[in-house]
Amino acid sequence: MPKNLLIAQSGGPTSAINASLSGIIQEAMRHSEIGEIYGAVNGIEGVLDRKIIELKSQFPTQKEFELLECTPAMALGSCRFRLPALDDKPSVYDEISAIFEEYNIGYFFYIGGNDSMDTAHKLSIYFTREQRDVRVIGVPKTIDNDLPNTDHTPGFGSAAKFIATSMMEIIRDCEVYYLDSVTIVEIMGRNAGWLAAAAALPHTVGCAAPHLIYLPEAPFDPEEFLKDVRRVQAQHKAVIVAVSEGIRLADGRYVSESMQSGMVDAFGHKYLSGVGKYLERLVAERIGCKVRSVELNVLQRCAGHMLSATDITEARKLGAHAVRFALIGETGKMVVLNRVSQQPYLVRTELADISQVANLEKTFPTQWISPEGNAVTQEAFSYLLPLIQGDVSYPTRNGMPLHFHFEKNYVKPPVRRA
Amino acid sequence: MPKNLLIAQSGGPTSAINASLSGIIQEAMRHSEIGEIYGAVNGIEGVLDRKIIELKSQFPTQKEFELLECTPAMALGSCRFRLPALDDKPSVYDEISAIFEEYNIGYFFYIGGNDSMDTAHKLSIYFTREQRDVRVIGVPKTIDNDLPNTDHTPGFGSAAKFIATSMMEIIRDCEVYYLDSVTIVEIMGRNAGWLAAAAALPHTVGCAAPHLIYLPEAPFDPEEFLKDVRRVQAQHKAVIVAVSEGIRLADGRYVSESMQSGMVDAFGHKYLSGVGKYLERLVAERIGCKVRSVELNVLQRCAGHMLSATDITEARKLGAHAVRFALIGETGKMVVLNRVSQQPYLVRTELADISQVANLEKTFPTQWISPEGNAVTQEAFSYLLPLIQGDVSYPTRNGMPLHFHFEKNYVKPPVRRA
Repeated sequence: MPKNLLIAQSGGPTSAINASLSGIIQEAMRHSEIGEIYGAVNGIEGVLDRKIIELKSQFPTQKEFELLECTPAMALGSCRFRLPALDDKPSVYDEISAIFEEYNIGYFFYIGGNDSMDTAHKLSIYFTREQRDVRVIGVPKTIDNDLPNTDHTPGFGSAAKFIATSMMEIIRDCEVYYLDSVTIVEIMGRNAGWLAAAAALPHTVGCAAPHLIYLPEAPFDPEEFLKDVRRVQAQHKAVIVAVSEGIRLADGRYVSESMQSGMVDAFGHKYLSGVGKYLERLVAERIGCKVRSVELNVLQRCAGHMLSATDITEARKLGAHAVRFALIGETGKMVVLNRVSQQPYLVRTELADISQVANLEKTFPTQWISPEGNAVTQEAFSYLLPLIQGDVSYPTRNGMPLHFHFEKNYVKPPVRRA
Repeated sequence: MPKNLLIAQSGGPTSAINASLSGIIQEAMRHSEIGEIYGAVNGIEGVLDRKIIELKSQFPTQKEFELLECTPAMALGSCRFRLPALDDKPSVYDEISAIFEEYNIGYFFYIGGNDSMDTAHKLSIYFTREQRDVRVIGVPKTIDNDLPNTDHTPGFGSAAKFIATSMMEIIRDCEVYYLDSVTIVEIMGRNAGWLAAAAALPHTVGCAAPHLIYLPEAPFDPEEFLKDVRRVQAQHKAVIVAVSEGIRLADGRYVSESMQSGMVDAFGHKYLSGVGKYLERLVAERIGCKVRSVELNVLQRCAGHMLSATDITEARKLGAHAVRFALIGETGKMVVLNRVSQQPYLVRTELADISQVANLEKTFPTQWISPEGNAVTQEAFSYLLPLIQGDVSYPTRNGMPLHFHFEKNYVKPPVRRA
């Protein structure tokens, strides 16, 4: 009897994560070595709760795959649950293993970011140690683009495209008045400046704005910031600033920290927000001109109406390749993108040891930041531009985008243990 | 010698305001009774500063008009300057009149909202009183949709489409986690709930969310709000709330007021922001679940990548009709849209006395709000849906939208007074 395949999605939403899911399902359907195709609802937590649904029958035609690929945020739901250390609580692993046996799972794909790769890593170690033939492959996604050993991550390109487009439009909006003003645009990215750097892409089409860009990789000095703003304002009345949520002072503290409650999420990450508001108040108090802060917020990670075709194509391919790699016996690996040529832009799908990805962060290269720490270089644009190219059309109803929804009927295990 | 035409734009940005500008220029170019076509940079302030540019030569082909029409925010720049009362400071009017004489202006078009219509109104009274043949026509624009005597205003449809689409995507984003959460989406609109009502449009495609909608036209009670949230949370773990920036308590105070500095703009309007943050803190303190607020902010008024074709077509037509009305001798009027049929949707361009528009607000009908004050009725959807239909394609460069820019070379008056 062929082994079955199980897919789960985890971490924070992106608008390309369902393209990877689509790629996995489509590829798996082509191989008779694979039996049923299951999805776990709400990540590894859903596995433990046996919230398992059958996927194949939900794709009668190619149209459903196309709809899934332009639907933002994990269609299978997500979780923020992290598996305990292997030796701390082996019972959880035994439980997952038993459920996998019940459902005859031979292939497990986890689509997620740094934290999800930690889960995939631990599971692959467990199954190898227990000599169980369950192949575990990680499929990357994160708008933050902070996974190492891959040129970039699916989800980043579409988020970058939304940010660059929004910046173009915010620039138009800010320039209409003939008065001194400062607009601060706060962008996601946690400790990595990749997304905030994308806010500078309007420079490549001749815009002077955003005039100042601050990334977490360069220490932030509020006094230097005020000097920067005053200097720019002498030339351009409407100063536009792009700032990463994760900028820090020279002593390592988050700039937004004084504004925060000190909350941390399940992974111990500081809950960040508010750097835009903080800088808004700083400008109001110290410069006193008209000032506004704009938080792109969740829109930048779920804008399914503004997908990068490059991103969606790559996300789908990574999913498909993950299946092929699993079929030839790979496990404990993550599929990655290797940029083999810049012009023309060309990427190759490869494998990386998941241990070299889990829990690690790839930050923005400091040599791509200006010495003053308030701009990015041409190298950054060369890196970023190919990732936001191409549009993806999407079906609409009543003038709004249509989205894909799974029927979430949980299935009983096909094979009962005696 | 034919009289010349002057156009200016004013108030807050919309993404349809340049379509009206395009309509005026295109129509004016068809009539030999009109000589030069001028634009004033930065509204009536630009007129006073003689920041006047020549427009005809900047449109060598139809392509430039198409680019202008998908460029958000006034391409001629804006101002927030309000003319003093006629009898308070007649010298300003005499100055404008002298400038109009220098440039031989016989037609003046002011594209703007309530406040701009006040300026157009005063000017038309002045010119009539002084027996000067300058025809003044107001062309409406405002995302707030709060102008009376017109079925709706250009700019509203595109903003509504962006809001409805963003809500669809925020719903996808919020539903991925299996935990109690509240997401509050703050929407513009000042004292009118039209835009916030558009956030409910996902209901027409089968979404249960947003589960609660609060408009300025229904008094807001924080305790009732908490009850509403708790009730919804029992059914849907991820509660999504759409709230207008202008909601008020029963005593008339803005809900956000306690959070504000009491700042007012040049027109004495309260500077509003922060109701989303206020409700976020309220939920955090009183309910204690995961909570986030999302401010759509300026994105909703400048999203040139998400235009309603209906909106852009109507905005262009209103501009064109304004020119035709001026040519047959009308003055002191605003062009308006009259919905003559709902199915099929059909609007007629008509004229309204500008005195019946200036400084007045048209708010959302209270009979379209549920008795509980937390939802909108089917009538609202029937009204809103036609306004967000159709897409407008836009040219791109480097994966970002291209925008139109005027060459801003100020021209000397063609006719010098002796």
